[in-house]
Amino acid sequence: MTLPSLRLKANADRRLRAGHLWVFSNEIDTAVTPLTAFQPGDQALLESAGGKPLGIVGVSPNNLICARLLSRDQRHPLDKSLLVHRIKVALSLRERLFETPHYRLVYGDSDFLPGLVVDRFGDILVVQLASATMDKHREDVVAALVQVLKPSGILFKNDSSARDAEGLPRLVETAFGEVPDWVALEENGVRFEAPVREGQKTGWFYDHRMNRARLAPYVKGKRVLDLFSYIGGWGVQAAAFGASEVMCVDASAFALDGVERNATLNGLVEKVVCVEGDVFDALRELKAAEERFDVVIADPPAFIKRKKDLKNGEAAYRRLNEQAMRLLNKDGILVSASCSMHLPEDDLQNILLTGARHLDRSIQLLERGGQGPDHPVHPAIAETRYIKSLTCRILPS
Amino acid sequence: MTLPSLRLKANADRRLRAGHLWVFSNEIDTAVTPLTAFQPGDQALLESAGGKPLGIVGVSPNNLICARLLSRDQRHPLDKSLLVHRIKVALSLRERLFETPHYRLVYGDSDFLPGLVVDRFGDILVVQLASATMDKHREDVVAALVQVLKPSGILFKNDSSARDAEGLPRLVETAFGEVPDWVALEENGVRFEAPVREGQKTGWFYDHRMNRARLAPYVKGKRVLDLFSYIGGWGVQAAAFGASEVMCVDASAFALDGVERNATLNGLVEKVVCVEGDVFDALRELKAAEERFDVVIADPPAFIKRKKDLKNGEAAYRRLNEQAMRLLNKDGILVSASCSMHLPEDDLQNILLTGARHLDRSIQLLERGGQGPDHPVHPAIAETRYIKSLTCRILPS
Repeated sequence: MTLPSLRLKANADRRLRAGHLWVFSNEIDTAVTPLTAFQPGDQALLESAGGKPLGIVGVSPNNLICARLLSRDQRHPLDKSLLVHRIKVALSLRERLFETPHYRLVYGDSDFLPGLVVDRFGDILVVQLASATMDKHREDVVAALVQVLKPSGILFKNDSSARDAEGLPRLVETAFGEVPDWVALEENGVRFEAPVREGQKTGWFYDHRMNRARLAPYVKGKRVLDLFSYIGGWGVQAAAFGASEVMCVDASAFALDGVERNATLNGLVEKVVCVEGDVFDALRELKAAEERFDVVIADPPAFIKRKKDLKNGEAAYRRLNEQAMRLLNKDGILVSASCSMHLPEDDLQNILLTGARHLDRSIQLLERGGQGPDHPVHPAIAETRYIKSLTCRILPS
Repeated sequence: MTLPSLRLKANADRRLRAGHLWVFSNEIDTAVTPLTAFQPGDQALLESAGGKPLGIVGVSPNNLICARLLSRDQRHPLDKSLLVHRIKVALSLRERLFETPHYRLVYGDSDFLPGLVVDRFGDILVVQLASATMDKHREDVVAALVQVLKPSGILFKNDSSARDAEGLPRLVETAFGEVPDWVALEENGVRFEAPVREGQKTGWFYDHRMNRARLAPYVKGKRVLDLFSYIGGWGVQAAAFGASEVMCVDASAFALDGVERNATLNGLVEKVVCVEGDVFDALRELKAAEERFDVVIADPPAFIKRKKDLKNGEAAYRRLNEQAMRLLNKDGILVSASCSMHLPEDDLQNILLTGARHLDRSIQLLERGGQGPDHPVHPAIAETRYIKSLTCRILPS
């Protein structure tokens, strides 16, 4: 198999040699190898300006990120065989880390499979294809997953905005076997069911697993407020870890049905109260009603989706966290999370400090958590790191 | 009790209002309140340039950090009563967090007790006094600790370099009761004894507790190398978590006797091998002997003690980690730690990436750990955050 070449401009190979996997369209020497010659999803042999081979890329000629390195070894293009190999490498890490088969099995670039995400719920796999190349090889992806994992069902949850930039349609479809609407998983010893078709992203957020595990010593015997609860990942675990009462707030009735379902699964339904409504409205109403909590968990959806949202997004994080602090009892714990890749951890820390000082409180930062190890960070690709979770103790000044 | 005033220059109150606790000598309006009027350890009422009271400070007139905020409430100077209150606040957090009484009980500024560190080993307390004010109140410190904790012994381990800047002598002395040379502790379910008089710092490094806990899934059934092992904090825990073999390397025979002692305590002496010598020499010899490990732990002493050490220190971290990677088996784990406050986590990450690329390896960053919650970070004081621990998977490129 002979692949066409894709030639970089001078020095554009540096970032790739330093470990990065992405090529930007302005880095291509289009006089020598015009991007217009490629179809979305084609593979090519990437070369430095001097003609040295750098590896095999998948090409997205119309995207700003016009190519992603699939393999540094030019003998190994993306095919079922490479997929099987990389999935096995990814699986061996997760099997070492986790006692039950519930985790992110493949995390894109960080598992050297750009454009592929696979979440595992036991025998059910939920797959997101986010690049033209991976989408073109979707049958190989399914075949490789079937060979390595022998699942009973595979779902394509291809409804993310990343597909728009790749010119791919958004759609959700069963790719293999049977996939129920709700699938079982276990996290930190607590049982859940996640809505893989109708829910957010793949249905479950495995990324906060370790941060939720760390709730245990803080919530025992305490009254807990879980803001933006979704289907109870934090709140139901807090109840399972011994919280005396948990209030889950979410704008989605569907999500709160999930909280009920998951609380019931663990025999915790009497400890968990659901409040449907806008979180900021709920915070005002709880303050007016003089409700107080020992622990508040604030894990909102990304307030900063694009760089231009930064200022407004920071203000939203500030408002959310300051209002959350107002609801805390005297020696209270705030778990403040952010999944906005554009918000550095230090900025979130400063937002919390500023909010606390504004309320004349002191703050101790106790835990600083990131995404779990089934979401490895690729150290050359800043975008692969996105989860922040800061556990703070809020004291009188 | 009327305290003398210490007057700040215009705008010098901003950092303090934002939460910080330190005053630098160039921020004092010495025309109004000369620092020469104070004795080391005196307390004063800190005022803004406009004369507004900001709280009570302890004064170190000859130090660059010439004052530290002890209390924002001018009714509460540092005395036994304030110490008892703050120690109780600190204790209540630790009792919530830990099942056994082995932890850092007081962590200086972060527990609003500038200049005071207390490590608890059950009934034995090891105290470090690092400011003139705290040193002047050492009898109150002992009395407060005795009242709150009823210890059987308190040791002053006052031999840190921080005391030089405060004009305080370095000395180690029993402050109360009886203090044995080796004291017992438990960490992550593993038993240890620490040499509180002769050892490094307070005898034990509680700061890496959570990072050591996370060793468990990585070391099971594996061959582990522990570099700069000290008395086996990492290595003996790796053995306890199921490592097949652990090699501890340290330049100090005294430290390695501690490894033996701690391995014996846990019935693990047959799994643990000690190698005495310079770590860089040992790395070369192990490479020459074609020894390979599944997990290498590199937790060196601070290579960057002062900012001017930055360049040489970074080179040392680079050399250490790259040589450690060379000893890894094909799918190996490197745990790379740094306690250099001047080395940001991102820089350590880049050092690891550069080393891996230089060896033509790929790297997945799996865990990103900091100091445990008994070493809270004061979010306004960057110096209170110092521990980094990055767990990386090193793969063929």
